[in-house]
Amino acid sequence: MQPAISVLGMGRMGSALAHALLKAGHPTTVWNRTPAKAAPLAAAGAEVAASVRNAVAASDIVIVNVSDYQATQSLLRDPDVTGTLKGKLIIELTSGTPDGAREVQAWAGRHGIRYLDGAILATPDFIGTEAGTLLISGPAAAFEESRAVLGALAGNVQHIGADPGLANALDSAVLALMWGALFGALQSIAVCRAEAIDLETLGKQWSATAPVIDGLVADLIKRSAAGRYAADDKTLSSVSPHYGAFHHLVELMAARGIDRTITDGYEAIFRRAIDAGHLHDDFASLSLFMGRP
Amino acid sequence: MQPAISVLGMGRMGSALAHALLKAGHPTTVWNRTPAKAAPLAAAGAEVAASVRNAVAASDIVIVNVSDYQATQSLLRDPDVTGTLKGKLIIELTSGTPDGAREVQAWAGRHGIRYLDGAILATPDFIGTEAGTLLISGPAAAFEESRAVLGALAGNVQHIGADPGLANALDSAVLALMWGALFGALQSIAVCRAEAIDLETLGKQWSATAPVIDGLVADLIKRSAAGRYAADDKTLSSVSPHYGAFHHLVELMAARGIDRTITDGYEAIFRRAIDAGHLHDDFASLSLFMGRP
Ligand SMILES: NC(=O)c1ccc[n+]([C@@H]2O[C@H](COP(=O)([O-])OP(=O)(O)OC[C@H]3O[C@@H](n4cnc5c(N)ncnc54)[C@H](OP(=O)(O)O)[C@@H]3O)[C@@H](O)[C@H]2O)c1
Ligand SMILES: NC(=O)c1ccc[n+]([C@@H]2O[C@H](COP(=O)([O-])OP(=O)(O)OC[C@H]3O[C@@H](n4cnc5c(N)ncnc54)[C@H](OP(=O)(O)O)[C@@H]3O)[C@@H](O)[C@H]2O)c1
Repeated sequence: MQPAISVLGMGRMGSALAHALLKAGHPTTVWNRTPAKAAPLAAAGAEVAASVRNAVAASDIVIVNVSDYQATQSLLRDPDVTGTLKGKLIIELTSGTPDGAREVQAWAGRHGIRYLDGAILATPDFIGTEAGTLLISGPAAAFEESRAVLGALAGNVQHIGADPGLANALDSAVLALMWGALFGALQSIAVCRAEAIDLETLGKQWSATAPVIDGLVADLIKRSAAGRYAADDKTLSSVSPHYGAFHHLVELMAARGIDRTITDGYEAIFRRAIDAGHLHDDFASLSLFMGRP
Repeated sequence: MQPAISVLGMGRMGSALAHALLKAGHPTTVWNRTPAKAAPLAAAGAEVAASVRNAVAASDIVIVNVSDYQATQSLLRDPDVTGTLKGKLIIELTSGTPDGAREVQAWAGRHGIRYLDGAILATPDFIGTEAGTLLISGPAAAFEESRAVLGALAGNVQHIGADPGLANALDSAVLALMWGALFGALQSIAVCRAEAIDLETLGKQWSATAPVIDGLVADLIKRSAAGRYAADDKTLSSVSPHYGAFHHLVELMAARGIDRTITDGYEAIFRRAIDAGHLHDDFASLSLFMGRP
């Protein structure tokens, strides 16, 4: 028999998590501040708890998925709830910062509650499928113990490390990559609109270029990992041609009134690297200049 | 017999272009300001012209590939050269802005010289291969006439439109996408370094996520093309969850002293869209707010 699990928070994501647990055969108890949202789960076979205390009493593993850590704390710091949690394992899947996770863990530690923190790299429709990714940080023993439960939630479950902040940190890092691509695409769309290039042409050109860009990103991460900043025979592009071509973009954006706040950010990093003598080094040398200016 | 071609500029790119033309069987005449750089081409079978005038006299199609349009103009505006070019076709493959290309074309038109402008989306090692991309703009007739020659330079040759600025515009648009991804990766690397997550873990996570990000970019371009900004049942993500998760990144970057000039740019665009009432619309609605604030 599968272990019993309780889930606090039946928003879009929490509901998807509870459905996946039921599907995997876990006796599942759910609770939500607004009770109506728990009704579909009851219909699917979950127990609906009348209070947070009852919910956490029902299982030794408690998954939390509310909007933010403040909401989590408002639920768990009730003395009755805290007492009931003693010796149990919280798996906190609410999004937040690394420091936010570290705070909740410190509080849990003080009350003899075990703690894992996770970040969900998936929308609710991917929960319970192979394509979902779940990043987990916290003690390895707790991770191993709950591996089967986590596997019911996502096909790709990664233990990032013992520090409970790491899952949120890696989540933010991957999202930074995503927004880079998305805001780059927004600039690209703006340039095409200003120059009356239809966006289907852009889409086609982008499909042809995406594998090349993916290769450049992979290379940038690999070189930064190895500290290989000097240009060598494997260098795909040094700072100098990037900076030259970048100025054509900036000139075009300026001429067409496209917002340059983002490209000002690129410029600042280019300038710091070039001023420090990296004009003919690999583009990866820019990774040395991401600190506070 | 293949038509004769002259190439001005034997830098890294110009040399690659001339080598590809020779390989395709074109009688090729080359010229470079610093004559030494033309020597390898002579060894490969090219004629080396002693002057720009002699170079342009040797062929009806003249490819120019120097560092920028200013260099192009300094070569072609010599009255002797201009006169010799009359009735010939210039294919300008030097990088620049759309307006830069339009200026050279206007000058060419005044002197009875035909003109195509191109942008090379490839490094020199891809010239003459299937993986090279060449964007061309200018009159369709001139494009058709030189299609075979252009095909010797790159496997993927696209005619973008009659306006000679369009090749450079689309080039800049695609590069904006590339820098978005690369600077996003630099932020991501900075976050991992600040949180002691090793970059191999980031690289692995990124490989798993790249196809998802590519899908988001494709969707963003498609929705912007169709003007589908309201959230619907195909919406992958609305502005609101993006903005929430974005603030976790900003908070983390602030706490770790990572430069936020680029994310300030994102924030400005998010704010304009949200202030205009798009919080629950598709992320694509941000494309309406890329103008001068
Ligand atoms: N949706 C996604 O695609 C996605 C992806 C990755 C991560 N996440 C993360 O998953 C978490 C939940 O997201 P969601 O999409 O499910 O959001 P949602 O649909 O807005 O649900 C929010 C949930 O939090 C509860 N809540 C908020 N404040 C509370 C409080 N003070 N006390 C008790 N409960 C409170 C809500 O209860 P009520 O029903 O009573 O309001 C609701 O159950 C967030 O941290 C989000 O960042 C979501
Ligand atoms: N390399 C790439 O990966 C790449 C990719 C796409 C596009 N491009 C574009 O291709 C063009 C050439 O790039 P490259 O990599 O070949 O650069 P490069 O190796 O630096 O060569 C520059 C060329 O321009 C010539 N030149 C510069 N100023 C001149 C002037 N005033 N008069 C006459 N000739 C002058 C140089 O002559 P000297 O030898 O006498 O200095 C040299 O032949 C640029 O517009 C670049 O943006 C390059």
